[in-house]
Amino acid sequence: MSLTISIDAMGGDIGPEVTIPASLDCLKDSAELKLILVGDETVIQQHLSQFSVDYQDRLVIRHTSQRVEMDESPAKALKNKKDSSMRVAINLVHEGVADACVSAGNTGALMATARFVLKMIPGVDRPAIISILPSTFGHTHVLDLGANVDCTAEHLFQFAVMGAELVKAVDNIENPKVGLLNIGEEDVKGNEQVKAAAKLLENSHLNYIGYVEGNSLNAGTIKVDLIVADGFVGNVALKSIEGAAKMISTALKTAFSKNLLTKLVGLIAYPVLKSFKDRIDPRLYNGASFLGLRGLVIKSHGGADILAFKTAIKLAEIEVEKDVIRKISEQIEKTLALRNIA
Amino acid sequence: MSLTISIDAMGGDIGPEVTIPASLDCLKDSAELKLILVGDETVIQQHLSQFSVDYQDRLVIRHTSQRVEMDESPAKALKNKKDSSMRVAINLVHEGVADACVSAGNTGALMATARFVLKMIPGVDRPAIISILPSTFGHTHVLDLGANVDCTAEHLFQFAVMGAELVKAVDNIENPKVGLLNIGEEDVKGNEQVKAAAKLLENSHLNYIGYVEGNSLNAGTIKVDLIVADGFVGNVALKSIEGAAKMISTALKTAFSKNLLTKLVGLIAYPVLKSFKDRIDPRLYNGASFLGLRGLVIKSHGGADILAFKTAIKLAEIEVEKDVIRKISEQIEKTLALRNIA
Repeated sequence: MSLTISIDAMGGDIGPEVTIPASLDCLKDSAELKLILVGDETVIQQHLSQFSVDYQDRLVIRHTSQRVEMDESPAKALKNKKDSSMRVAINLVHEGVADACVSAGNTGALMATARFVLKMIPGVDRPAIISILPSTFGHTHVLDLGANVDCTAEHLFQFAVMGAELVKAVDNIENPKVGLLNIGEEDVKGNEQVKAAAKLLENSHLNYIGYVEGNSLNAGTIKVDLIVADGFVGNVALKSIEGAAKMISTALKTAFSKNLLTKLVGLIAYPVLKSFKDRIDPRLYNGASFLGLRGLVIKSHGGADILAFKTAIKLAEIEVEKDVIRKISEQIEKTLALRNIA
Repeated sequence: MSLTISIDAMGGDIGPEVTIPASLDCLKDSAELKLILVGDETVIQQHLSQFSVDYQDRLVIRHTSQRVEMDESPAKALKNKKDSSMRVAINLVHEGVADACVSAGNTGALMATARFVLKMIPGVDRPAIISILPSTFGHTHVLDLGANVDCTAEHLFQFAVMGAELVKAVDNIENPKVGLLNIGEEDVKGNEQVKAAAKLLENSHLNYIGYVEGNSLNAGTIKVDLIVADGFVGNVALKSIEGAAKMISTALKTAFSKNLLTKLVGLIAYPVLKSFKDRIDPRLYNGASFLGLRGLVIKSHGGADILAFKTAIKLAEIEVEKDVIRKISEQIEKTLALRNIA
């Protein structure tokens, strides 16, 4: 089975310098993969010419004249950037030319454009952003990471239904454990939306395990496969974790670079520190999927390097192979039908 | 100036085994300090007898017959545990016998009891919980950490006013930088409460610097002295950081204990790893203050060890010395008066 992914080659803080080598690496790793590099043809050709590799049969350039800026408002991007690398990469998914699209561009613009072009899955009220975090148990999926700021219980419930289908497909597990992010595990804890969402989840087909607290994202007491949150809370949690990791890594670097002796110790400890770093390297967890749309869009971190962007492309490959969008659509339809019967 | 602190000696996951040695350590460190150990006299005497130190003039035991359990409901604790170590420790503050109270007990019960016994500062709608987090810039204060789950803009504004007074006093700075926790730094980002709170803060006496994201709690791009959030969001962020730190420390330990060689490297690197660990040791940041009440209550982490509980007592000492409650009351009164004029 061949699969085609459109790459927003101009997106991200760095752009083609990252997106193109990452794309070539992915083509090398997977013989089934076809990529469409969307962006300024001259710039793309320039970058490609730096590599001797040849994937002409599996690599297509689609020229576009515009680029969505990292700080551009979603409304302006949608209105004025119809020939941007971002927009055209999404159009290719809509037209069925590509099976998925990967972009490191501005999240707001990417979500607005994806929603406008691809439309929502019938029955889903709002799209959500889902990503993977490393945890002491392996990893955890979490959504919503910022697409929505005021979620009702029904929204949270739909996020859980969509997220669980993605986890089932991507992690190859039958019945993923679903937790609801809250400020305590007792029934009385939380705000009204969370309490009402808990009731919906308890009465659903999902393997709902109850409330989980913020520490469960990385290091809870039991393994949770999927954690559901309002986008405001999910986004703050994700960025809080990023900040904590950055502070800890800065403190570690500072300790080892204090003087000649500590630097020497650092050299000796390097292989161990490297294996530690690799275990929780955020680049190996890069790539957030937009759920609820009739097409697959993967958002890479804006500051992604080659390895990180490659991870996002590989996530797109897996989700295409596992037919995640179709599975989500079918599950949403099934859930709605059950509700209409009840 | 002598100062007196009441200690809920029975509170916390561990209880007197932690609270008593920590108390004795603090008495040793500060000749001005008087402590009232509140709890079961026999148990307290038993623990005290293990130490040869003698602070009879500065150490008093106040016997109580009950203990609030760590999972007891706030309502039940309030109704049925009138002779608990927690309740009596707070009563002593209310009666003016103690200047502050420190407890590692159940947060919900402690807040409900403190609010019931001490009452609110006039003009403050809701109490909030504030704590200190290490950051790449030194440290950051953050509130609310979970006392409130649905905050209006006015609540967030009051948290900022109270928090800023505490930061001014404790950190000895004139005009602390206040940030509002949000999911982006642009004006359009956030939910309605946050946007409305931003307007109130812009028009206030506070040194409001705008929206900050989750990473600013530990490692933002600029120093922020105080970060204000809804209690739901603040609590999830705090616990997410705890989880991230735990995962990273587990990964570090795993890397160094993989085999004999890595263990040897770990021995060599021990002093460096120790200095790194000390920099971000959460025990050195233990102690959350309840703001908005007419008396000082410090909540220690339930699982605190001796060093952590000592940190919480020392925080109480500082806040008493700096007269934080009076300063907050005066600032709230001033802010209300300004508003009535306007």
